[in-house]
Amino acid sequence: MAVEFSQYLPFWNKLTDDQKQRIADVVEYRQVEKGTRIHDSSSECIGLIMVHSGQLRTYILSEDGREITISRLFEYDTSLLSASCVMPDMQFNIMIEAEKDSKFWSIPACLFKNLTEESLAVSQYSQSLISSNFSELMWLMEQIMWKSMDKRLAEFLLEESRLEGSAVLKITHEKIANHLGTAREVITRMLRYFQSEEMVKLTRGAIEISDEKKLIELLAS
Amino acid sequence: MAVEFSQYLPFWNKLTDDQKQRIADVVEYRQVEKGTRIHDSSSECIGLIMVHSGQLRTYILSEDGREITISRLFEYDTSLLSASCVMPDMQFNIMIEAEKDSKFWSIPACLFKNLTEESLAVSQYSQSLISSNFSELMWLMEQIMWKSMDKRLAEFLLEESRLEGSAVLKITHEKIANHLGTAREVITRMLRYFQSEEMVKLTRGAIEISDEKKLIELLAS
Repeated sequence: MAVEFSQYLPFWNKLTDDQKQRIADVVEYRQVEKGTRIHDSSSECIGLIMVHSGQLRTYILSEDGREITISRLFEYDTSLLSASCVMPDMQFNIMIEAEKDSKFWSIPACLFKNLTEESLAVSQYSQSLISSNFSELMWLMEQIMWKSMDKRLAEFLLEESRLEGSAVLKITHEKIANHLGTAREVITRMLRYFQSEEMVKLTRGAIEISDEKKLIELLAS
Repeated sequence: MAVEFSQYLPFWNKLTDDQKQRIADVVEYRQVEKGTRIHDSSSECIGLIMVHSGQLRTYILSEDGREITISRLFEYDTSLLSASCVMPDMQFNIMIEAEKDSKFWSIPACLFKNLTEESLAVSQYSQSLISSNFSELMWLMEQIMWKSMDKRLAEFLLEESRLEGSAVLKITHEKIANHLGTAREVITRMLRYFQSEEMVKLTRGAIEISDEKKLIELLAS
């Protein structure tokens, strides 16, 4: 197992034997079912997450229960978002849940933090992860600020179809609303509009993309 | 001057003499007038900015010219937002302008980047700056997502009044809209509502906060 997770860590070969051992001593391997909440605002920092298989979703939650997806993690992805305690000045709460049955490793936040203080390679790795989180967030904010909801929904449906390898998406309007940070009614209304334009077909519990090209055109318009 | 800017850099004492000299050789001191655009998407990365006096504003700009303020920088603040080239995977453009006559130092991005690769102390400092930018952005996104515009406007007016040390704010509705990422009409409408509730008085070119307590109550409601 040690061999496997070390492949996720570009700084592995720059660690001392002692540092490698300290990681190996505490690294955790977990297997979770679809729907499991891996991390929430009440739980301890998990630390650095390395996804072995499956699909995780990171999101924020408002006081009145609205959600918005920040990022999705797939095989080979690593994330520090569950390690806000590693990052100085972090004062917000990120939730993480498994969107599919998933397996992942985690390195506890406190050890990871210590390593960033000992090793330039780890510190730089950490910096690059935080930067790319920042970039994602910036992208998301630009979407929310400047892009109309119809385009965001079209983009979400196309992305989801690509991820699932299917034109038939078994996802509720509620879930889509939670991804996009809006109300279920807004999504339902817009999906009905998409249906009237013959881009999708709505059936009980599923959305079928019936004209992918039209959705792509909407995106580009 | 070398003595002065080094006070802004918590890692200064951990640098070698050679590293200190390389910074001293290229550090720039600039004095700009209110309204000057210091950094935009077409210009080179400025690098690390250290504000000596005045007030800078960092913001993003959409293709159709809408703005939203990301952060404001005051005396003693440092920022890496103008150094997206220092951060890996950065693909967005930040603008920076002087909101008041300002003086600041800058360390060119390429030197700063080299230093993060040489020095653990600089790498950690850089990590903490990026984290705090991330945290700000997260806060802003939560505001945009979950907070209604009336509260954001009330908060902005109170903050602005505190910064200016005055209840009379000489700011246009257009400028406020640019800070908050909305249209001028939205701000005008809401200010008129605030006026009808006797929280502010609108005069030509100025907004006077006539009932601070009411604005604070609105915020807390």
